[in-house]
Amino acid sequence: MKHPYYPLSLQLPTFVANTLTVQEILGGFFACVALIIVATLRFAKNNTVGDRWAAVWFAVCGFIHCLVEGYYVLNNYRIPSDQSILGQLWKEYSLADSRYLTSDPAVLSIEILTAAVMGPLSFILAGAIVKSRPYRHFLQILVSTSQLYGCCLYYMTSYLTQFKDSHPHPFYFYGYFVVMNLPWIVLPIVMINASARATVKAFSATSKKIR
Amino acid sequence: MKHPYYPLSLQLPTFVANTLTVQEILGGFFACVALIIVATLRFAKNNTVGDRWAAVWFAVCGFIHCLVEGYYVLNNYRIPSDQSILGQLWKEYSLADSRYLTSDPAVLSIEILTAAVMGPLSFILAGAIVKSRPYRHFLQILVSTSQLYGCCLYYMTSYLTQFKDSHPHPFYFYGYFVVMNLPWIVLPIVMINASARATVKAFSATSKKIR
Repeated sequence: MKHPYYPLSLQLPTFVANTLTVQEILGGFFACVALIIVATLRFAKNNTVGDRWAAVWFAVCGFIHCLVEGYYVLNNYRIPSDQSILGQLWKEYSLADSRYLTSDPAVLSIEILTAAVMGPLSFILAGAIVKSRPYRHFLQILVSTSQLYGCCLYYMTSYLTQFKDSHPHPFYFYGYFVVMNLPWIVLPIVMINASARATVKAFSATSKKIR
Repeated sequence: MKHPYYPLSLQLPTFVANTLTVQEILGGFFACVALIIVATLRFAKNNTVGDRWAAVWFAVCGFIHCLVEGYYVLNNYRIPSDQSILGQLWKEYSLADSRYLTSDPAVLSIEILTAAVMGPLSFILAGAIVKSRPYRHFLQILVSTSQLYGCCLYYMTSYLTQFKDSHPHPFYFYGYFVVMNLPWIVLPIVMINASARATVKAFSATSKKIR
């Protein structure tokens, strides 16, 4: 079966072309993200601006990790012929990284950890931020470090294979591969930095009290 | 060149057999580890028993991440013919996982992050534990989460390829592959748990003070 993915030598005997347009797929995805943002902002209306947007970020992460990436984990072996909305979303994204069509062990391992562990923890963390729980920063460091580590590995494994699985067109390489993953580099760094400051402050305060 | 690695079909044209015995390689490695343990115990002699051994653990991690894994990162492309002590150590370990002889992108990416980031941070953390710095638990959660994430990925990528790169003999599969990596599953969990308790306690204390 002819297919649009890289490397061009890739064999995808079960591949079926998408029937949805890019606009429909991305429109559906971003509509869901917008819904989560609006819902979380309402839920966190009594929090500070910073905490409100932190809760939004982790709620969006929970949605993407559990639903979008969870779907991938459960259906990874049949994505090339999958015509469901999420199947078509993954076929569209695979233009930027065909490892998603071949159940690449590194990508699949990262996705399993992300969907099964980081997804649920992101939702718990969003709740912990809204309710100012004392375990909030512990969980924020743990989740953000895992996200940062996973995304670094994701980029690095591609780099070490000369991006051979990525479509060279800038729309796919920059628009999908770089830009769509970059939030999981930038925002974890912001979140880890915020938690580092809060944790150092809390421990400085308690150690003064003890002395 | 004939070689003892799995899968048997693996091509290693530059492979040169080790000249050191297993006893010499493992003896040298564990002698260095013992030295680090003794040195750290002296350095941390005024700390609690728990903190003393936590400092020992992260000092040993620093040594292994920076020196042993750092050596691998810098020399990964020439391990099959490398006759230095550390080269021979990696050829011996590669019986349990031949991905180290082929610069497998997932293994190499994990090793780069571990050697370049987690190694230095482990040493800083060992010092922070000895000196009871307020950033100790922040760093402990960050380093331990990264180690746990990396080791989970390491096991998972092997599992997803049916351990095809591992020698099936129990000495290599259990003695090397399972047992030699297991500390980076068990001890990060212990350390994350300890830091979770300490962090929750610190934040509970400060939030009470504020109210």
